[in-house]
Amino acid sequence: MARIVQKFGGTSVANMERIRNVARLVKKEIDAGNQVAVVLSAMSGVTNQLVAYCEEANPLYDTAEYDAVVSTGEQVTVGLLAILLQGMGLKARSFAGWQIPIHTDDAHGKARIVEIDTDDLIGRMNAGEIPVVAGFQGIGSDGRVTTLGRGGSDTSAVALAAALNADRCDIYTDVDGVYTTDPRIVPKARKLPRITYEEMLEMASLGAKVLQTRSVEMAMKYRVNLQVLSSFEDIPGTLVCDEEDIVEKEIVSGIAYSRDEAKVTIQGVKDHPGIAAALFGPLAAANINVDMIVQNVSEEGHTDMTFTVPRSDLGRALKVLEQVRDVVDYRDLSHSDTVVKLSVIGVGMRTHAGVAQKMFSALAERGINILVISTSEIKVSVLIEEEYTELALRALHTAYGLDAR
Amino acid sequence: MARIVQKFGGTSVANMERIRNVARLVKKEIDAGNQVAVVLSAMSGVTNQLVAYCEEANPLYDTAEYDAVVSTGEQVTVGLLAILLQGMGLKARSFAGWQIPIHTDDAHGKARIVEIDTDDLIGRMNAGEIPVVAGFQGIGSDGRVTTLGRGGSDTSAVALAAALNADRCDIYTDVDGVYTTDPRIVPKARKLPRITYEEMLEMASLGAKVLQTRSVEMAMKYRVNLQVLSSFEDIPGTLVCDEEDIVEKEIVSGIAYSRDEAKVTIQGVKDHPGIAAALFGPLAAANINVDMIVQNVSEEGHTDMTFTVPRSDLGRALKVLEQVRDVVDYRDLSHSDTVVKLSVIGVGMRTHAGVAQKMFSALAERGINILVISTSEIKVSVLIEEEYTELALRALHTAYGLDAR
Repeated sequence: MARIVQKFGGTSVANMERIRNVARLVKKEIDAGNQVAVVLSAMSGVTNQLVAYCEEANPLYDTAEYDAVVSTGEQVTVGLLAILLQGMGLKARSFAGWQIPIHTDDAHGKARIVEIDTDDLIGRMNAGEIPVVAGFQGIGSDGRVTTLGRGGSDTSAVALAAALNADRCDIYTDVDGVYTTDPRIVPKARKLPRITYEEMLEMASLGAKVLQTRSVEMAMKYRVNLQVLSSFEDIPGTLVCDEEDIVEKEIVSGIAYSRDEAKVTIQGVKDHPGIAAALFGPLAAANINVDMIVQNVSEEGHTDMTFTVPRSDLGRALKVLEQVRDVVDYRDLSHSDTVVKLSVIGVGMRTHAGVAQKMFSALAERGINILVISTSEIKVSVLIEEEYTELALRALHTAYGLDAR
Repeated sequence: MARIVQKFGGTSVANMERIRNVARLVKKEIDAGNQVAVVLSAMSGVTNQLVAYCEEANPLYDTAEYDAVVSTGEQVTVGLLAILLQGMGLKARSFAGWQIPIHTDDAHGKARIVEIDTDDLIGRMNAGEIPVVAGFQGIGSDGRVTTLGRGGSDTSAVALAAALNADRCDIYTDVDGVYTTDPRIVPKARKLPRITYEEMLEMASLGAKVLQTRSVEMAMKYRVNLQVLSSFEDIPGTLVCDEEDIVEKEIVSGIAYSRDEAKVTIQGVKDHPGIAAALFGPLAAANINVDMIVQNVSEEGHTDMTFTVPRSDLGRALKVLEQVRDVVDYRDLSHSDTVVKLSVIGVGMRTHAGVAQKMFSALAERGINILVISTSEIKVSVLIEEEYTELALRALHTAYGLDAR
């Protein structure tokens, strides 16, 4: 007997037929002799509608009221699944976040889970009951409903799996696993049977929207065996696990890309100690996340500096940089929002040289210019012009031997 | 300064524009120096959709899960109204039933309010805050969400008004008050400025769907000044109040009708003591509500018996009666589901003779046959063929001098 948390996303509960399918997937685990707790999202589209209502009421809405409104979608799906499971002769009961309770901090709209009381749940599961838990939500110290931010149901599921000491946390979604890269762009992309937490984290933070980043962080912290699989097809998914659980490590596991990038270049900065702090301090104060910083060597006391910011923050970033011109003396400020960041990711590159070099030459062969480079322990990222995205992805996928055979 | 509970129904919060209108009606009372608590229904159509989901999942759904699902509609509207009120510079906060808490019994789907904790609410209202409370819902002793039955938001509002010792409970709806009869059928129907609790109760229980019956019972019990008025037009509504608060009492205040009737006739029943108990006992056991019972005088030891049951229960009633044929010996069982019940209602008839006679002659003049008659202290009801409904209503409305001048 294993204890399993099954999580189903919005497209998996989009209508009654699909919720019925979810009920069958739950029953399958019960019939196999397992204990199951289920975490659900709202029907796809519902949360967006509720968010739109709040924004229509007032773009500067009170986030506590926003949480009261947008947390209702999950309460509908958990009740319906409980009804369907009962109709199959199973013992099931729905739980809103406050009923468990799932304690969070009071940061409405982006709350963090603090603690989950599981004594009652474990008692119920031992007695053969299936708790059906509303994802995405909890209760703050003030007794008000909180939500965990978009995609938060993944985090609910992982947190519940950790608290229940579950053997597995299965994330059912509308894709059937994690791929070496986006299969819509690279038809030869392969599904990975296994991937490490670290790699998944890099993939997720780069916009591969299979899992919410925070849920992967939490799974890594509490060593939750995470599985991504399809709720529509009965085929093996991708297991997100510890490095030592992967026997055949690939040097590069995947290639991710992010279009949410804008490049800023500051030319002719008078070079003196503290210049970086003077530039990036005000950006941080404006809550703008700066990435991929490159500083050229100084010539005649002047230097150039390039970095990226999220595309949606570009306007604000430029405004901040104009304002600091009095303090940071520079000649010219330029920018581009037609760039894309490509990253090759793999824990194997820690022990293998030449990974970056292979990337540079593959791109050079196609005449693709690299604008900025940054590296981390398990990742090499480059910034290129957006129009080369597809060409570059396919070239790198082949170069690293990832193509499906 | 007065303390007021304002309740707005589904059509009054059907979309953002209308909720904005509700916010203005709340602000008007605040600007007049009053303390206000608001009770809301779900957007019109939403609860029906949620009920349909439950029935689609399983027609024999668990009522506790049904409550978890159908209680979500009100949580959306209260959050949105709180956001809008805050946007007008007012202090407001939404409350789900479990947050107040509104304690109910555990009869899911048709729970009754047991107690409302108001200390926190009164403190907030004294500090200038507007509590915006989800109607239709509460929390049972087991910590699960309960609902009060369709139209239950009226009851939430009256119960809150009673608990808060409010000066007035204003029920805003899509009609502008209580009429002498259905204005869609009788164009000369008049709006009543005042009506007694007893009369309103008879009107409500006969299908005049302005107020939930239970809310009127509760208002009567706790002497809550109830006002029915339009959320769309700024005109006086109808005050539901004590008899002594009405100076000019009409003999007949209104004429109600109910199409939810079916007639059952049992002919040639062998007449002996205990026969009524033998017939109606099994119907009561089957939870079928029997109304308007008439028994003819016995001839040669046999009698005929006629009564009405709710139209939706007719099939079950006939089945029960077939089953008791062994015990209750009768010759023939017949029924009709094309009948309608008309009632003239008025506290004044307690002290006036000839009210029933006026009804019988007005119907006789139009050649309308009366099938069954029943009377109570403030009501005379007759059963007639459904096809005469409109003709009879108009004739009675004129006969009792209710036509608008």
